[in-house]
Amino acid sequence: MHKPDLAIVLVRPQLGENIGACARAMFNFGFDDLRIVSPRDGWPNPKAVANAAHADCVIENAKIFDTVNDALADREFIYATSARQRILKKEVISSKKLQVVPSRSAVIFGPENNGLRNEEASLAHQLITIPVNLKCPSMNIASSVAIICYQLSHCQIIDKQSLELATHDELSIFLEKLEHDLSESGFFFIETKKQMMLQNIRTIFTRIDHLSSQDVRTLHAILRALKKNVI
Amino acid sequence: MHKPDLAIVLVRPQLGENIGACARAMFNFGFDDLRIVSPRDGWPNPKAVANAAHADCVIENAKIFDTVNDALADREFIYATSARQRILKKEVISSKKLQVVPSRSAVIFGPENNGLRNEEASLAHQLITIPVNLKCPSMNIASSVAIICYQLSHCQIIDKQSLELATHDELSIFLEKLEHDLSESGFFFIETKKQMMLQNIRTIFTRIDHLSSQDVRTLHAILRALKKNVI
Repeated sequence: MHKPDLAIVLVRPQLGENIGACARAMFNFGFDDLRIVSPRDGWPNPKAVANAAHADCVIENAKIFDTVNDALADREFIYATSARQRILKKEVISSKKLQVVPSRSAVIFGPENNGLRNEEASLAHQLITIPVNLKCPSMNIASSVAIICYQLSHCQIIDKQSLELATHDELSIFLEKLEHDLSESGFFFIETKKQMMLQNIRTIFTRIDHLSSQDVRTLHAILRALKKNVI
Repeated sequence: MHKPDLAIVLVRPQLGENIGACARAMFNFGFDDLRIVSPRDGWPNPKAVANAAHADCVIENAKIFDTVNDALADREFIYATSARQRILKKEVISSKKLQVVPSRSAVIFGPENNGLRNEEASLAHQLITIPVNLKCPSMNIASSVAIICYQLSHCQIIDKQSLELATHDELSIFLEKLEHDLSESGFFFIETKKQMMLQNIRTIFTRIDHLSSQDVRTLHAILRALKKNVI
């Protein structure tokens, strides 16, 4: 069966054993693109290899990144897993409802203790939630990875390449530019609200459906034009 | 959401950590009836409690049995999980296809190293297989439990009580009687083939759809009648 080009991104994972178990769960469903952001106990981690069983190749080929942004650079569609209600204005979809998945996607998972930070989850186009028992909602990270990969491995793949979708990196560069220009213009005059405002702005732009590379070029052009007016 | 009355049966599990992780995965999807057959490291096992996280109540209430038969006594429908092809003539269903589940069911899982023995799997009415990558088919037991519970927690429940289905115990008693009578009559004259022949017989009777308590009483009557003829 043809599988989507899917990266699993573990953000600040804590235990090597869990990283190994995640690699095994991914590979059980045919996924082998593991990306790890700032693993707590450094890298390589012998406990990850030991717990990966027959998925040691996934651990050996895992890519390590300093930031979530870097790990997502080449991805066109990003899911974030989330156990709890968030204040983000983003579509939350039950894992059970996932029937189609864009190619060149990523699913990001937060650390074992706290999950993803809001600013990390805000990088995603869509939040996925696994429908769990409210008396025991906290899942083992490898079980979550197993369920998401189980669900996605049988999804229909939408290849959006023909649409020339913007990569995460292209949008990020635009958002950084926008943030910089807004900062210079005094937009964030209440410093304590800056993070929340930035998160809201990012959430607006990641909600644009089918945003293409050309669209991002247009956004850059708009930004340049507006700045000229100000000056 | 109403959940099926489902027992998870771990047969000869090896690591306490895994038993704990299975309890957590079950309880994540609202199931709390854990039955353990001959745990390798005895019971209670502090490692199981430690790894159960917020599902420690499932570990505390787990029931321990000496045999798989005992663990299944009150169940009306039994699934066995199986990663590998088996010689049993039983329906094998992909977990993805599970849409309805009878109430008073059980799912049995084998030990981490070898899975269920054929004679254990032959106790089931249906084999479930999780569709995995053939390059890495061996799943962590807690991930398997998580996926099966995830799938079953959203199934439609068939309540077969009105049909007065035979329990596992009722059928077992009949099969033991049959085995005893066949032994006495010299049916198993090639001793080395006895196990295989018994397994085939058991498989035939567990394949009877909607076998009721009344049906089992009829089978007993047939057996008694046939014996009278012989004598």
